[in-house]
Amino acid sequence: MARYLNQSEAIRLDEELFNECHFGVEQLMELAGLSCATAIVEVYPESKNVLVVSGPGNNGGDGLVCARHLKVFGYNPAIYYPKFAVKTLYKNLILQCELFGIPFLMSCPEVEDLNSKYSLVVDAMFGFSFKPPVRDEFKDIMHNMIQMSTPCCSIDIPSGWHVEKGPHDGECLQPDMLISLSAPKLCAKYFKGRYHYLGGRFIPPYLMEKYHLEYLKYPSTNSHLKLNSEI
Amino acid sequence: MARYLNQSEAIRLDEELFNECHFGVEQLMELAGLSCATAIVEVYPESKNVLVVSGPGNNGGDGLVCARHLKVFGYNPAIYYPKFAVKTLYKNLILQCELFGIPFLMSCPEVEDLNSKYSLVVDAMFGFSFKPPVRDEFKDIMHNMIQMSTPCCSIDIPSGWHVEKGPHDGECLQPDMLISLSAPKLCAKYFKGRYHYLGGRFIPPYLMEKYHLEYLKYPSTNSHLKLNSEI
Repeated sequence: MARYLNQSEAIRLDEELFNECHFGVEQLMELAGLSCATAIVEVYPESKNVLVVSGPGNNGGDGLVCARHLKVFGYNPAIYYPKFAVKTLYKNLILQCELFGIPFLMSCPEVEDLNSKYSLVVDAMFGFSFKPPVRDEFKDIMHNMIQMSTPCCSIDIPSGWHVEKGPHDGECLQPDMLISLSAPKLCAKYFKGRYHYLGGRFIPPYLMEKYHLEYLKYPSTNSHLKLNSEI
Repeated sequence: MARYLNQSEAIRLDEELFNECHFGVEQLMELAGLSCATAIVEVYPESKNVLVVSGPGNNGGDGLVCARHLKVFGYNPAIYYPKFAVKTLYKNLILQCELFGIPFLMSCPEVEDLNSKYSLVVDAMFGFSFKPPVRDEFKDIMHNMIQMSTPCCSIDIPSGWHVEKGPHDGECLQPDMLISLSAPKLCAKYFKGRYHYLGGRFIPPYLMEKYHLEYLKYPSTNSHLKLNSEI
């Protein structure tokens, strides 16, 4: 049984990792993105043509790191990053992806492109601090991803979902895979896809206890863990 | 066949990772230390009581990260860090180890302690920028580690060795395991231990080519790779 965090718990846990434990953002982002990449390789070993759609915040940063590690693992990722980065952190992660030869799409891919060119689309648009509505830059890609038949893997939160209440009544992403980072957020209870994984194996014991998180048994040195569907 | 780097190549490659690729030190240190921890778990699955001896620079930082991940993997690491940290980077890594409940030794362990209390000692004292002589703070622990019967695993360079010419005539560490990071340095040709591994799977292709590094085949998503003894 994994415990589900509400939005304010997720935000506080994140703040404590940075302010109390003095982790660097790029340090934990590296581990989070790596765990997403290793989980994806486990679930989709043949889906080499991956599009990573990254948003403007830390969820998007996790996606950029994930894309780089997928490239290292022999995949052919491409990235769609619709909102230009301002922060140095994201600019650096983008440069690193470029130096690994990962192409960036300069216009929003159509549904037919998503279906024909990619065997997996990674949704790294919005994370646990998301508040609706979806910004303009992401409306088209969100719409196309909802229409596409290619499987979608969401990092931490299916983008557009309410962090606690899950999908809303309108058209919504229904990812095939969800990788919860550190702990599932409440919206994960509404996840109907085939694969629910946990990544981000870096919470110190005192925070595990403070947030009543379960010590789930990761296999050996893996940084990802398959969660049972009934949790 | 892995290519061996000389000292100036190792220093330049490192500078280019930071200055050209804009990697953060804590970002690559996290990956390097993680790869050391996963390699150690592969080679010494039963050696849970590990002492990590960390030096004042980046090699020591790799050791701190390695210790934290070993703890996450169910090991019981302790750390000896004989020179107090001044840089925020190392202070943060030390705090993180403390928050994971890893004890720090406040005095140099005797040979009998090294033999009786630990099943593995990780040497993270000095890296590829080391120039002799060994500083005073490290003389006692270096001497005791040379005398101990517990196996030693060196990160990147067996401490005290010349980065290119290997061990000198006097008493020298003879590690059982060596984990070369990014690429072996020339001194690795003199390594006589049982296990030579490569870690640090994060070099962009253009730097692989610039330094004529071989694309060695890491298994799947592993961040460590066993090198053949004959290379």
